[in-house]
Amino acid sequence: MTENFQVIAPADHNAIVKAAYLQRGFDTSEAEAAARFSEYATCHGIRTHNAIKALHLDHLFGSEAGGCVPGAEIEVVDNRFGASEVWNANKKLGQATAYAAMNRAIELAEQYGIGQVSVDNAFHYLWGGGYVMDAAKRGYIAYTNCTAALAEVVPYKGKFPTLGTNPHSWGFPTCEAIGFPIVIDWATSVVSMGRVQQFLREGSELPKGSAVDAKGNLTADPAKVEALIPFGEHKGYGLSLINEIVAGFIGGSLPTLRSREIPPGEKRTPTFYFKVIHPDALNSGIFAQNRNQAANVKAVIQDILGHGNENCLLPGQLEAGWAKKCHDAGGLLFSDAEIEALNLIATECGAVPLNT
Amino acid sequence: MTENFQVIAPADHNAIVKAAYLQRGFDTSEAEAAARFSEYATCHGIRTHNAIKALHLDHLFGSEAGGCVPGAEIEVVDNRFGASEVWNANKKLGQATAYAAMNRAIELAEQYGIGQVSVDNAFHYLWGGGYVMDAAKRGYIAYTNCTAALAEVVPYKGKFPTLGTNPHSWGFPTCEAIGFPIVIDWATSVVSMGRVQQFLREGSELPKGSAVDAKGNLTADPAKVEALIPFGEHKGYGLSLINEIVAGFIGGSLPTLRSREIPPGEKRTPTFYFKVIHPDALNSGIFAQNRNQAANVKAVIQDILGHGNENCLLPGQLEAGWAKKCHDAGGLLFSDAEIEALNLIATECGAVPLNT
Repeated sequence: MTENFQVIAPADHNAIVKAAYLQRGFDTSEAEAAARFSEYATCHGIRTHNAIKALHLDHLFGSEAGGCVPGAEIEVVDNRFGASEVWNANKKLGQATAYAAMNRAIELAEQYGIGQVSVDNAFHYLWGGGYVMDAAKRGYIAYTNCTAALAEVVPYKGKFPTLGTNPHSWGFPTCEAIGFPIVIDWATSVVSMGRVQQFLREGSELPKGSAVDAKGNLTADPAKVEALIPFGEHKGYGLSLINEIVAGFIGGSLPTLRSREIPPGEKRTPTFYFKVIHPDALNSGIFAQNRNQAANVKAVIQDILGHGNENCLLPGQLEAGWAKKCHDAGGLLFSDAEIEALNLIATECGAVPLNT
Repeated sequence: MTENFQVIAPADHNAIVKAAYLQRGFDTSEAEAAARFSEYATCHGIRTHNAIKALHLDHLFGSEAGGCVPGAEIEVVDNRFGASEVWNANKKLGQATAYAAMNRAIELAEQYGIGQVSVDNAFHYLWGGGYVMDAAKRGYIAYTNCTAALAEVVPYKGKFPTLGTNPHSWGFPTCEAIGFPIVIDWATSVVSMGRVQQFLREGSELPKGSAVDAKGNLTADPAKVEALIPFGEHKGYGLSLINEIVAGFIGGSLPTLRSREIPPGEKRTPTFYFKVIHPDALNSGIFAQNRNQAANVKAVIQDILGHGNENCLLPGQLEAGWAKKCHDAGGLLFSDAEIEALNLIATECGAVPLNT
């Protein structure tokens, strides 16, 4: 690796994150969920959604801006359906809400084979891949999507951003088959606004067809970017629409209102959707060569990556590789700049700075 | 339109299709399902999956090749999960199987809010969008995927085709909101092999990054195409993998074995997966401006297509437009070449040719 990383004990990292959330008024269980999630993101190399980013988002849009309410209680909305729950999160911390919702969806899947939890009045859960990866490691097929807090993406052949970057995350329990869970997890824009900023800093051009300028015309100049483009033309546009439509059925706000001051009587909160499937609930038992389910999944994956495709990666493989690197190093890997930022956070909230 | 279309009474079309399937040994309910599906595809302008294509596929891979067994009985595989069924279709006709599976998933969603039906030992259901559109018109959120019969697609950064064109289809009950169901429905390759053939006939180049030659190198020359590329780089690759992994959990065969003679003890059948959600099972009831669910979905969609995006299309809009054209014309619209093909089919199976 080109960057220099230092090894930090997870307990030391978690103590700082927990203290920072407690100082902002979150309760112990929320602060612990936030710390656990930041550890999980860092352990899997998701540096765009580590503790520094989480606390920055909370500052910009969350507890300090009214988008997130420390100590909020989740209400379960009555419905008549056994395998389905709808929650009003009352702007509770996204990580705590998402862990609880995925746990509940797992319970429903244990009972019904499939279960879903829809969450209204949510606040940013950071990295959907983390929740489905966690569920997949526990043996379940998991899916989540959410609406993004900002409308940054232009519909296919459109001019104005009225969609979020609207990610989808799927996790599959493939640890027995291949040693790690397959996790398919990405936003539906070609690039993120974070990447645009990176291109700007580096003075390089954007990938073709990834952004538009103020007039809605395509641009590769990061300085002129006003909005992003969905990946894969009408296909990525459709995938982005799914999040907005599901949110609309749940109770989500108009996409463009999520980005700005809202008129009276309107909402600006995102929504979450979680779904879990028990793998036994898909199992026909009719596997070739008397394989069991895990052996069949393994055979299918080996076939896909055979025949000259041995150098292809599986989604989730890089994250699993980073987790192994952390495991071998005996802790979380942070750059010097990240440690500096974490220690600034520690100083501000009275926690013990990292000993490096 | 540049082509000349003639108006055909659905009953006349359906009589030919039904007679053709009966002649091939299918029973009445199968033949009627096939006719109904062909009518639905043609009515929505899905000319790539009309009756002519359906019968051609049955000839190549189906009842004449052993991939599909007329009169086969579906077996329900025992499991302990209320909202989930697994079926062994025993190679029953895909259209009849898919209609039945979607109906069962709707019943499960009525009871549990969400329901899934997985189908092993399936045979080609033609156009997944048709089943989710039908369910969406009946008021449900529906999803289906399947594995393709042929491995024609190369994994991201791979050389050899080990994936199918693996489509995904989502339908949303938006008739009350916008007058037609939103239907997101596409294969995960940039183009289909049918499109490659069309480019070859027309002497034009393929879209960039859509196919590889025999050595696994990118080519834009339709004459050199050996395999296809997933759309959207790693994202489309991930979406294609989903179908194979879900199939692997169900009981599906190795992707490359679906395309060829198989060793003893192996399988070559595709699988289907169906999921239905009752919209009430997502409903938080907490809509802005006292909207109800349909009004909220309408407001969300209007916001997305507002602000200068008024010329954008919604997925399913072209299909709804074609259905209106058929409705206004008083029947199904077929080209002269299609009518000729249908009349050849009619002659072969002793049905009454179309009166044009």
